[in-house]
Amino acid sequence: MAYGAIFPLWRAAAEPQWSAYTRHPFVGMLAEGTLPRAAFLHYLVQDYLFLVQFARAWALAVTKADTLAEMRQCAATVHGLIVDEMRLHLQVCAAEGIEEAALLAAEERVETLAYTRYVLDAGHSGDFLDLLAALAPCVLGYGEIGARLLPEAAGTPYRPWIETYGGPDYQAVCAGVGSLIDGAAARRLGPAPEQNARWADICARFRTATRLEAAFWDMGLRP
Amino acid sequence: MAYGAIFPLWRAAAEPQWSAYTRHPFVGMLAEGTLPRAAFLHYLVQDYLFLVQFARAWALAVTKADTLAEMRQCAATVHGLIVDEMRLHLQVCAAEGIEEAALLAAEERVETLAYTRYVLDAGHSGDFLDLLAALAPCVLGYGEIGARLLPEAAGTPYRPWIETYGGPDYQAVCAGVGSLIDGAAARRLGPAPEQNARWADICARFRTATRLEAAFWDMGLRP
Amino acid sequence: MAYGAIFPLWRAAAEPQWSAYTRHPFVGMLAEGTLPRAAFLHYLVQDYLFLVQFARAWALAVTKADTLAEMRQCAATVHGLIVDEMRLHLQVCAAEGIEEAALLAAEERVETLAYTRYVLDAGHSGDFLDLLAALAPCVLGYGEIGARLLPEAAGTPYRPWIETYGGPDYQAVCAGVGSLIDGAAARRLGPAPEQNARWADICARFRTATRLEAAFWDMGLRP
Amino acid sequence: MAYGAIFPLWRAAAEPQWSAYTRHPFVGMLAEGTLPRAAFLHYLVQDYLFLVQFARAWALAVTKADTLAEMRQCAATVHGLIVDEMRLHLQVCAAEGIEEAALLAAEERVETLAYTRYVLDAGHSGDFLDLLAALAPCVLGYGEIGARLLPEAAGTPYRPWIETYGGPDYQAVCAGVGSLIDGAAARRLGPAPEQNARWADICARFRTATRLEAAFWDMGLRP
Repeated sequence: MAYGAIFPLWRAAAEPQWSAYTRHPFVGMLAEGTLPRAAFLHYLVQDYLFLVQFARAWALAVTKADTLAEMRQCAATVHGLIVDEMRLHLQVCAAEGIEEAALLAAEERVETLAYTRYVLDAGHSGDFLDLLAALAPCVLGYGEIGARLLPEAAGTPYRPWIETYGGPDYQAVCAGVGSLIDGAAARRLGPAPEQNARWADICARFRTATRLEAAFWDMGLRP
Repeated sequence: MAYGAIFPLWRAAAEPQWSAYTRHPFVGMLAEGTLPRAAFLHYLVQDYLFLVQFARAWALAVTKADTLAEMRQCAATVHGLIVDEMRLHLQVCAAEGIEEAALLAAEERVETLAYTRYVLDAGHSGDFLDLLAALAPCVLGYGEIGARLLPEAAGTPYRPWIETYGGPDYQAVCAGVGSLIDGAAARRLGPAPEQNARWADICARFRTATRLEAAFWDMGLRP
Repeated sequence: MAYGAIFPLWRAAAEPQWSAYTRHPFVGMLAEGTLPRAAFLHYLVQDYLFLVQFARAWALAVTKADTLAEMRQCAATVHGLIVDEMRLHLQVCAAEGIEEAALLAAEERVETLAYTRYVLDAGHSGDFLDLLAALAPCVLGYGEIGARLLPEAAGTPYRPWIETYGGPDYQAVCAGVGSLIDGAAARRLGPAPEQNARWADICARFRTATRLEAAFWDMGLRP
Repeated sequence: MAYGAIFPLWRAAAEPQWSAYTRHPFVGMLAEGTLPRAAFLHYLVQDYLFLVQFARAWALAVTKADTLAEMRQCAATVHGLIVDEMRLHLQVCAAEGIEEAALLAAEERVETLAYTRYVLDAGHSGDFLDLLAALAPCVLGYGEIGARLLPEAAGTPYRPWIETYGGPDYQAVCAGVGSLIDGAAARRLGPAPEQNARWADICARFRTATRLEAAFWDMGLRP
């Protein structure tokens, strides 16, 4: 998936980390249905804790936006994360007998702490675009994985996960975030972003966040 | 209006600033209809610029919340400010021939800068409760003014303003924020907030923000 | 004074605000010795409160630096502000019978709040360069004023103030900050900063901070 | 070592994590001299990257202090970290043929990212005391380890490391930080800190940072 003009450039600049993330064994096992249930549930719990921090990071983006349009889109994303995506996790977890209180009482793993606090720090230490570059791998990588697996992964118990991220609602979110990134980059890097003095630093932020996504999958395999 | 248990304590600790704010000549002239139209429009423009920063401050509160319930309520407030309250301003301004582009191009007055950046800094330098104490005078003071003027101020061209803040929707917002403050204070100051070591500092933040509300009205009278 | 290559560009883009600040009546009265003592002391008290916040803003710059060299220079500035410049204020105030406790108990004026919290917010909402652009008018403007007045303002009781900012120690600080800005701009805006997409926004931050310097002098004349 | 009155309470509330950190195998191997050189150098490189972020966190503390005394002590700590402690690392690394450029080019490990960004986030999401609780385990734990090993660990090639942290200069730093914590806690939690509503949350921050110290040693053993 392209999700705009800037994301493909960031993704290309983040190899081999991008493939290590999106083609991670955890993803393969999700698609084939060979992922142990314990690993999936462990991942879900940590991903819920991740989402809480991720919503905080998108709220931080509201405080760092330069235009009302940027503010509005980030605020809508906070809303979507807190209301929709977290409820989805709650439903799946509840079906497995894990209540929200148990989710919130779980201890954040080192990989969860590293990823989420790195994203928040990208916002605090840099500007709006630095923060978007750290937010992008999660949002758009899940979209890319979902879209890739949707047509092929039929016989897996993890089909609902794939349909969530490969389905039209989440793909529309990705298109919107891709467009937000393009606008934010145009505003701050100009018409030739790759020639901009900040380009290498921005790509490095995307790459580090991508590396931390792969570490998150690693952690998922160690319940 | 009470708006919970903590707000009346803060208000009492912020006299004479609270009366200077809520009984400001600007408010009296709004109620009597003697406020010059130019002053009202000047105020509206600055208040729009204020709301942009105020939405940023509520988004900052999302990043500083300790519980999901706190996050959710602050995120809902951001949404309400950006979607509902700012649209209301846009409508009133548009009816006067002031477009959003003109609003956003207006220069923030010193009083607008002082108030909004003070609130944001309360969040950055302190914790969630420090930020709430700086956010409260605007939200709840407007509610108090609106509720007081609603039954009495009939023959003023500024009746729609009074109905906005005195009406049930905004009063419900105030009740919710009062309850958010009570919960946040209980969690951080314990069952006897006035005995807590931080009480004087928290009250000082509320008082400074109240002082800056009065300065904002002063500015409104100097178009 | 040039203080590097970027500062003259920012200054030129901030007219007429820059002249309104550096040629403000307060400055003229300082040079001629016609400034009422009460106004000077009032200014000194607010400037002390200003310096406390300004030291916080330079500390924020340490957290937003991208290189160790940037961190080191900002940390040295924090140290210089807290240890040297604030002590100077304390000495002058003590000679007038104003103790530090009285200084810290003074209420920040709206203009002091506006300027300092705007600078801090420039750091929180933007990146390192946004923060430097908001810090620059104070540091370099005082250097420019001091250097201009030093050879001409002989018979004024405010001669020590002029010697502080026109003297070699403070001029060296300005040269250092000018060089810090040039390096920070080169790193983030590239070799043609005026062609960079962010240039207008960065200049706007410098201009707003300059405007707030003039407002600070206005306040100084209203003890 | 006591290092004040609050630290022993935090330490007691952080068992068994505190022992897992201060009695970690890495520490034992340092004392006995059985730690592989490669592990030590790997640790040193990551610890240098850690110190850069730790200096940022102490600078953040300057921005969150409530009193000038707190600001001054935090600013002095930033200075000490950037000038003294980082130079010490550079010297040890240089003696091993590792130049600063190589240090700064090294990739931060997940454990380094997790710990440092968690500390920074404790500051951004909480107040001054939240930040101190996250900063304390590193500063005071190293002091405790150094003081314990100093009289016993004679025949180890890592003797200089032990003398650094067990020696009088670093012990004085620890005494100062312990006293800063006591003052900060008295100001914000009152005379009975363990009865304060925030006590459990503050202890939880200290405990999480302690857990991340142990994870950092784990990482040290995986060069």
